[in-house]
Amino acid sequence: MYQKVALIGLGLIASSMARAMREHGLVGTITGHARSAETRETALEIGLVDSVHDTAAEAVKGADLVVLCVPVGAMGVIAAEIAPHLASGATVTDVGSVKRAVIDAVGPHMPEGVHFIPGHPLAGTEQSGPRAGFATLFTNRWWLFTPLENTDPEALARLKSLVEAMGANTDDMPPDHHDLVLAVVSHTPHLIAYTMVGVADHLRRVTHEEVIKYSATGFRDFTRIAASDPVMWRDVFLTNKEATLDILGRFTEELFMLQRAIRMGDGEVLEDYFSRTRAIRRGIIEAGQDTDAPDFGRGPKKDA
Amino acid sequence: MYQKVALIGLGLIASSMARAMREHGLVGTITGHARSAETRETALEIGLVDSVHDTAAEAVKGADLVVLCVPVGAMGVIAAEIAPHLASGATVTDVGSVKRAVIDAVGPHMPEGVHFIPGHPLAGTEQSGPRAGFATLFTNRWWLFTPLENTDPEALARLKSLVEAMGANTDDMPPDHHDLVLAVVSHTPHLIAYTMVGVADHLRRVTHEEVIKYSATGFRDFTRIAASDPVMWRDVFLTNKEATLDILGRFTEELFMLQRAIRMGDGEVLEDYFSRTRAIRRGIIEAGQDTDAPDFGRGPKKDA
Ligand SMILES: NC(=O)c1ccc[n+]([C@@H]2O[C@H](COP(=O)([O-])OP(=O)(O)OC[C@H]3O[C@@H](n4cnc5c(N)ncnc54)[C@H](OP(=O)(O)O)[C@@H]3O)[C@@H](O)[C@H]2O)c1
Ligand SMILES: NC(=O)c1ccc[n+]([C@@H]2O[C@H](COP(=O)([O-])OP(=O)(O)OC[C@H]3O[C@@H](n4cnc5c(N)ncnc54)[C@H](OP(=O)(O)O)[C@@H]3O)[C@@H](O)[C@H]2O)c1
Repeated sequence: MYQKVALIGLGLIASSMARAMREHGLVGTITGHARSAETRETALEIGLVDSVHDTAAEAVKGADLVVLCVPVGAMGVIAAEIAPHLASGATVTDVGSVKRAVIDAVGPHMPEGVHFIPGHPLAGTEQSGPRAGFATLFTNRWWLFTPLENTDPEALARLKSLVEAMGANTDDMPPDHHDLVLAVVSHTPHLIAYTMVGVADHLRRVTHEEVIKYSATGFRDFTRIAASDPVMWRDVFLTNKEATLDILGRFTEELFMLQRAIRMGDGEVLEDYFSRTRAIRRGIIEAGQDTDAPDFGRGPKKDA
Repeated sequence: MYQKVALIGLGLIASSMARAMREHGLVGTITGHARSAETRETALEIGLVDSVHDTAAEAVKGADLVVLCVPVGAMGVIAAEIAPHLASGATVTDVGSVKRAVIDAVGPHMPEGVHFIPGHPLAGTEQSGPRAGFATLFTNRWWLFTPLENTDPEALARLKSLVEAMGANTDDMPPDHHDLVLAVVSHTPHLIAYTMVGVADHLRRVTHEEVIKYSATGFRDFTRIAASDPVMWRDVFLTNKEATLDILGRFTEELFMLQRAIRMGDGEVLEDYFSRTRAIRRGIIEAGQDTDAPDFGRGPKKDA
């Protein structure tokens, strides 16, 4: 589908893309660049890419598809660096978890004749680095695109064919709406999980050992979320500031309402609130995004 | 190990106990009682118990072990009801998620010559009812006991042998400390998850359908937690009020600190905070309470 794909950043997402593209025979050659020599060497050694390059500018030469797979805050500098080296007619996309900020940072650098199509695969794990990837990461997951006004429909269709061939479902969305939806379903939940784990960490009356030992229900899921890459998430919150603060405001408002019900001993408010949240869960199971098999919390999930 | 075990309440925990006790041949007969005729019939029909009884008083007659498996708020009334019918020398235990409140509600009713030993298995799923149980629920999970001053060591040892034979590990803890630890690792995380799912539910600018469709990371875990039984959790918060409010206070304090860092664009504070929470996760994996296999979030977890 593409002759030469350049992956800038060689972590979880890029390495999963490389594996998926190879497994399905979707590309000719794959070139890559990452910040550290160590990551570049690993990527070459485990066969993710056909060649690695010391600079992003080198890596993108002659590529008909360039994928920016670095933390959101690093996208702008890389865009400026690669711009003069992009092939005419090439498509540049990114996988950043925030879209408005990436568009603002990358867009202005894109030369005429290059198709910039912002994207975001809703797929990930709490692990990172070039060894973390696997070919099925995107299977049955959403890959959102937030096309710009002047996005070429053919270039968009071609890019969608690629990610669909990797197993993903695609959808379009305005960038600001994307950032709000993600603030709800991903960014704020991550911040909350980080905070809860932090609270446990700071508490003196409950030892670290006890927290670890008795983490069986509830907390264990939080620690997994809170083990995600600190730099990636720092950048997400810094660049999706408004939507995150908006949702956080609503969250604390409702939390205070429940907190008050606990203090007042108002069981009706609590039971009623807890009953309504069950409906959302049912919807997710019906939408095929999870199963209702009980979560024993003891082994790796099977890939369905 | 026991001749006759009476299970009062026939939901997830009781049905898992029944299956585990039978599978390992640990008991003679099992009698049961639940509030509704429907649950009682189901329990008999699927062979959880040898007999069901319309009243708890009937069910406990002649039992050498009585296990209270009802929501925490229902324990006191049942204790009062069964007290006159308990066999001399019998052990009464409970599986409630809060311990101080159960001790205060049940303890005063216990007649001389009966051993009351409060307990709590740290094992569960988000499902409930007599059909939700399975024999391996307690395998490699902690079963905490909060013995009283006058608890008979032999009765405690015998009860521990039973739950250990069901696969659990046992530990003792003062009741107030239990309630604090659980507020950290389970109760507060549940309240937070309920709240986050509630926020998503109330938001008009993001549709229900979008939330369900894009729940892949972060949010999906919250919805699972927030699908737990409303009555059980109402009772947990009403009866573990002080510890929950204490931990909630700390939680909002730290959340406001991070919220401020987002507003100020202070990336260092965020990255630093997120880096420290990773350590706890590593500890949990080393303690064998989870694996570091990536969570694809698509299939049921395998029972390890
Ligand atoms: N993880 C998820 O769950 C997930 C899901 C969807 C989207 N995303 C988005 O995908 C992007 C990458 O995430 P990831 O999980 O793949 O991250 P990752 O595993 O941490 O990998 C990041 C890669 O970017 C490289 N990098 C960082 N700064 C760079 C710079 N200034 N110049 C060149 N390379 C740089 C790193 O190089 P070194 O190895 O040399 O440091 C590393 O190879 C992020 O924008 C994130 O928001 C992540
Ligand atoms: N679920 C967990 O994750 C978990 C983990 C550890 C401990 N616990 C504790 O275990 C206990 C039971 O939880 P569960 O998950 O097994 O609950 P469940 O599946 O909802 O079952 C509760 C059972 O109690 C019965 N019941 C409720 N009120 C009653 C009353 N007033 N008189 C007699 N029976 C009554 C119900 O009868 P009907 O079916 O007729 O309504 C049902 O059989 C709770 O104290 C909970 O805190 C739960």
